[in-house]
Amino acid sequence: MPRKLGRAGKIKTPHGIIETPAFVSVGTKATVKSLTPEMLRDIGAQIVLGNTFHLYLEPGEEIVEKACGFGKFMGWNGPTMTDSGGFQVFSLGAAFGNRESKIKSSPRKIGGFNTTATKKARIDEDGVSFFSPRDGSEHRFTPEKSIEIQHKLGADIIFAFDECTSPTAPYEYQKKAMERTHRWAERSLKAHQKAKKVLELSELFGIVQGGRYEDLRKESARVISKLDFDGFGIGGSFDKEDMGKAVRWVNKILPEEKPRHLLGIGGVEDLFSAVENGCDTFDCVAPTREARTGSIYSSKGRINITNARYKTDFSPIDKNCPCYTCKNFTKAYISHLFRSNELLAYTLASIHNLYFFISLVKNMRQTILDGKFEKYKKSFLSSFRA
Amino acid sequence: MPRKLGRAGKIKTPHGIIETPAFVSVGTKATVKSLTPEMLRDIGAQIVLGNTFHLYLEPGEEIVEKACGFGKFMGWNGPTMTDSGGFQVFSLGAAFGNRESKIKSSPRKIGGFNTTATKKARIDEDGVSFFSPRDGSEHRFTPEKSIEIQHKLGADIIFAFDECTSPTAPYEYQKKAMERTHRWAERSLKAHQKAKKVLELSELFGIVQGGRYEDLRKESARVISKLDFDGFGIGGSFDKEDMGKAVRWVNKILPEEKPRHLLGIGGVEDLFSAVENGCDTFDCVAPTREARTGSIYSSKGRINITNARYKTDFSPIDKNCPCYTCKNFTKAYISHLFRSNELLAYTLASIHNLYFFISLVKNMRQTILDGKFEKYKKSFLSSFRA
Repeated sequence: MPRKLGRAGKIKTPHGIIETPAFVSVGTKATVKSLTPEMLRDIGAQIVLGNTFHLYLEPGEEIVEKACGFGKFMGWNGPTMTDSGGFQVFSLGAAFGNRESKIKSSPRKIGGFNTTATKKARIDEDGVSFFSPRDGSEHRFTPEKSIEIQHKLGADIIFAFDECTSPTAPYEYQKKAMERTHRWAERSLKAHQKAKKVLELSELFGIVQGGRYEDLRKESARVISKLDFDGFGIGGSFDKEDMGKAVRWVNKILPEEKPRHLLGIGGVEDLFSAVENGCDTFDCVAPTREARTGSIYSSKGRINITNARYKTDFSPIDKNCPCYTCKNFTKAYISHLFRSNELLAYTLASIHNLYFFISLVKNMRQTILDGKFEKYKKSFLSSFRA
Repeated sequence: MPRKLGRAGKIKTPHGIIETPAFVSVGTKATVKSLTPEMLRDIGAQIVLGNTFHLYLEPGEEIVEKACGFGKFMGWNGPTMTDSGGFQVFSLGAAFGNRESKIKSSPRKIGGFNTTATKKARIDEDGVSFFSPRDGSEHRFTPEKSIEIQHKLGADIIFAFDECTSPTAPYEYQKKAMERTHRWAERSLKAHQKAKKVLELSELFGIVQGGRYEDLRKESARVISKLDFDGFGIGGSFDKEDMGKAVRWVNKILPEEKPRHLLGIGGVEDLFSAVENGCDTFDCVAPTREARTGSIYSSKGRINITNARYKTDFSPIDKNCPCYTCKNFTKAYISHLFRSNELLAYTLASIHNLYFFISLVKNMRQTILDGKFEKYKKSFLSSFRA
């Protein structure tokens, strides 16, 4: 029988302890969309993640630094993390306008703005040039720059600069990108350690890449785990059926005593699979992004609250859910707010969806501690329709 | 020396006591835009007003009735009021597309949709035909219909159906419209009393009209005050300098023992003037509507928070303001949220602006009780720039 990877633990940060497994709320631009920090606390959120690239563009890391960091700026006094900007290499590169195309790697030096370029990110050995999706202005991230910005943003946990590749990229490209990510990891670590000599600083997590190839994932896990990181991120996109497998390959190699964050994953089944295979934390925009379209979670699956049938449904979204939305409002009311384009619709739906995901992962933690995770997973997924 | 009209009092409702003068929060479609009912309570809101015409269109009065009324539907357990739809006669009629034009009064029977009509409301002796601003569908309100809908919406205080005229309408039209409003008042009252025989019902307020003409305002006050209403509304648009005068004419005639609501007025100077001249309650969308554009109130006047100077201003909007927004967030942060089009921007700005207006009127109440209203008014207005 294979060794069990799923685990319950605790991550200590200067802003409190994170009980893991834990779902990380995404506060891209220093706000979890439509929610106050008090609402986040009431929901049971333990940690908020900010996006380095977005905060660098607006309001700029200098302003966040002057505000005494990301958490303080947004009024959140719990633990925080920032990503490295590496995901934007994917979202503005390979994924831009065409989810299937691979990142165009260009070793030549970036000059002026190439008006014929369809991709908004170009990679070379030293770093990545981005074109701002807001105004087309050019920006450059290197591992050193990403770390410098993240230090100014001042989260408790920060990440090494990496390249998040497309799941459809061929083996050769995945290997090349992974090896570059390893060199960037060393440079990120060096920049962090240098700054750490003069400043009390955050924990730095190294990122494992390697796409969906077993040998690359294992090689990446071996290389990154040998570096002096405080924890690890598992990056990249996966095919749904590959994810659990790829995470297992990696987590069998990563040192047991350090935390493991799975970047940008948050489907219900994916979360079970990630927890089962040894991940401790996960961030995903899905709960709040879907909430804003009226797509709402319950233990039976998702409903679209704008559906006409809910106009006269005076029951809560989920009668067993103790969240603020379910305790105080009916489907008929929330459905009315969505049809009327009322801002409160997004708040109430986001509270519920985020509560759903945070509680789901909390329950996974409890059932691990009770030795009943397998049973919980089976029972939950048998009635849940994605 | 003239008799002092300004007064502090209490209005009893089945959902609690309103200490007056009081600012009424506007929850047009059964939500004070971007705020939860808990936020409203924390702000110190005492009463919420819903708009009958909007709620009739969406979700429909039948659904609100099934939800046990407007307050219950939106999760607000304090006092409530609904307007009569009369303001929409103005906003879809005289004011539609051209603030200055007068309402086109058409005695002929309304047939199909007149595609050449620019106005979206047409008035005859029996009532008003509206064309929905959403889909062009035709709807008809009469005094009896307005009362029937308001009974279903189930607020604590409801209003007789009236015509809100344009401030630029000539004397002859104002007189004609006022006389019709008086006939509608009697019909509203009769419909209410008939229903009251079988149901435990809300209080009905009659509305005084008459534009800015002294003889008409006084006549309207005399006619309406003789009818068996539980309180009064003062309707119509005013020129800024006329308002205090017109309100004074009316309140000298209205019986002292019944409450007086000034409909849709909410400028800072107007509120001082209305309180001074004997009004008890006031509703206005300005605090929340302006908040959503970044226009924020303080004791010194309004600022536009999106102004570049606030990007690095790490002080609260008003260091003396104890509202949630001022206690927890800086101008730099709120300004960042607005520049990033983040939903939380509207919530935080609305909390502050609504707190500002509600507290301002609470302070007026206290200074009336302390005999210091005049001094407070003078001191407040000397430093406030509208």
